[in-house]
Amino acid sequence: MPLAMPLAMGRAYARPVDSTGGGEWAAIGRIRSRFPAPPPGETWIGDDAAVVEVAGHALLLAADVVVAGTHVDLALTSIADMGWKAVAVNVSDIAAMGGRPLHLTVTVVGPPEIDLDGLYDGIAEASRHYGCPVVGGDLAIGPGPSVSVAITGWSPERRPVLRAGARPGDGLWCTGPLGRASAGLSDLRAGRASSANAAAHRRPRARVEEGTAAARAGATAMTDVSDGLASDLHHLVQASATGAALDRVPVAEGCTTEQALGGGEDYELVFAAPDPDRVRAEFAAAGLATPLLIGRCVPAADGLTLAGQPLAPLGWEHRWRGASRG
Amino acid sequence: MPLAMPLAMGRAYARPVDSTGGGEWAAIGRIRSRFPAPPPGETWIGDDAAVVEVAGHALLLAADVVVAGTHVDLALTSIADMGWKAVAVNVSDIAAMGGRPLHLTVTVVGPPEIDLDGLYDGIAEASRHYGCPVVGGDLAIGPGPSVSVAITGWSPERRPVLRAGARPGDGLWCTGPLGRASAGLSDLRAGRASSANAAAHRRPRARVEEGTAAARAGATAMTDVSDGLASDLHHLVQASATGAALDRVPVAEGCTTEQALGGGEDYELVFAAPDPDRVRAEFAAAGLATPLLIGRCVPAADGLTLAGQPLAPLGWEHRWRGASRG
Repeated sequence: MPLAMPLAMGRAYARPVDSTGGGEWAAIGRIRSRFPAPPPGETWIGDDAAVVEVAGHALLLAADVVVAGTHVDLALTSIADMGWKAVAVNVSDIAAMGGRPLHLTVTVVGPPEIDLDGLYDGIAEASRHYGCPVVGGDLAIGPGPSVSVAITGWSPERRPVLRAGARPGDGLWCTGPLGRASAGLSDLRAGRASSANAAAHRRPRARVEEGTAAARAGATAMTDVSDGLASDLHHLVQASATGAALDRVPVAEGCTTEQALGGGEDYELVFAAPDPDRVRAEFAAAGLATPLLIGRCVPAADGLTLAGQPLAPLGWEHRWRGASRG
Repeated sequence: MPLAMPLAMGRAYARPVDSTGGGEWAAIGRIRSRFPAPPPGETWIGDDAAVVEVAGHALLLAADVVVAGTHVDLALTSIADMGWKAVAVNVSDIAAMGGRPLHLTVTVVGPPEIDLDGLYDGIAEASRHYGCPVVGGDLAIGPGPSVSVAITGWSPERRPVLRAGARPGDGLWCTGPLGRASAGLSDLRAGRASSANAAAHRRPRARVEEGTAAARAGATAMTDVSDGLASDLHHLVQASATGAALDRVPVAEGCTTEQALGGGEDYELVFAAPDPDRVRAEFAAAGLATPLLIGRCVPAADGLTLAGQPLAPLGWEHRWRGASRG
């Protein structure tokens, strides 16, 4: 989170990122401008999670919603998968700060017919998997279903890793190859429900261990790949006031470059870090696969490029008609 | 919250509280049973807010959703009112623990046409009013609108005031007369939009100062009147394993007893406290009106009575068809 966007499933209202001001990110900017600036040391709207101080400690807060018909298609995935996903995408927001999840609140809105037990099967499974209990929430009848989750977390390192903080010269790393969730959705639509990529779409995995390893390795900026590499990297370099030169796109087996670059929902982490040896050492010490070095940060004036060519912020965002008002 | 329920507006799926197991509270009980019991000193699902420990301090967490067509009728109240209400009902959950609000995350799901600016006008106004910034959230296209808020808070007293803890002999107090929100809804439906009660429905007020005064006065149990006095008191005495003998129902001017008893959404606080002088002194010291002494706690075997007659847990809850499964 805050206000990060999972894969929009090709609905009429989900469009490639719009740089003209009518899209979700413009709406978020206008929402952000309504509220006061955070006190020193805190980060509010605009990063994967907010950083607030409670009793002298940094607490992470985030919230993400999963809406049937928008983020998941219940004809292709089960309602338990929807519950899992609502938890996992929130845990991913904490992971993207180099943090560990603490507590969940879960709010479900849906018609009287929905299978609450099935939904909570998936929620409880993810809650156990990430060691993050559901401590409260709300239930209401209404159109849907939608599952709104809020999460708290903490950072084992001294400071959480923001999107801002990358410097020219830092290496850009990705914790794994991309495109599986997008390819998996295609598989599900084609009736190939048992493919490994289909599982990546149905049950995304938050990279908590990878995020804390990156933080220990001195990561200067980090985000999760929820909207698509190009779009999420765009937000990271914008927040850091740098540019980025990608050498390559890490494409997962059986996936296309387009799926890897624009599909989103892979929830791998992308981070900047100055010392490659330290990155390799920390991931090895944690028993994790070495992350993929995909490029480097450059001065802001050099923009965002892939193999020397300008890279548009491909990805998905929701379009709010009201967003062009005011 | 957790899982508290504002006024359901007479829709087919909102029914008087159902003690047969098919209603919302039965669903909450089944959800609660899926998750482990909290560690000593923590309270999870089932109170107005959860109490969790963060860095040795008690943190309060709650989440409540406001759904158009279920909790508010946008033909009668503005979308800014809806935004205000989504914040106020969450602040009320913190107030009901004797706490003060800290941070909000706000998740909005709605169609592309919704007036996000108008909605955030109300959210921002309530956020300023309660000194509780919006630090993050999510935006998604989907059916609605619904506004899911999660809130953090802290308790200025040593321990938050739970629903459990009342003892036979404790006085039962209410921070103000009831029925205004319900009467206000009737006024709005009858076209009397400028009535004082209509304002009580459109812009409910969380009793933060009253809640902290009650905590200082030694309140042993507390909850807010969101579902209706009879229903909310039922939850308090059930959690405390006591009964309650009400001498009277505090009916607000121009309201009926039924509106006061069953209407809900007044967000006054009901609390138990052993020492009436201390209650009067703490409220006076805070410059607050003396709360109304409405009865006393009695042994559980004596049940819940009003002027000696059994009192059914009147109020509203959502009915989940799936809730009778399993």
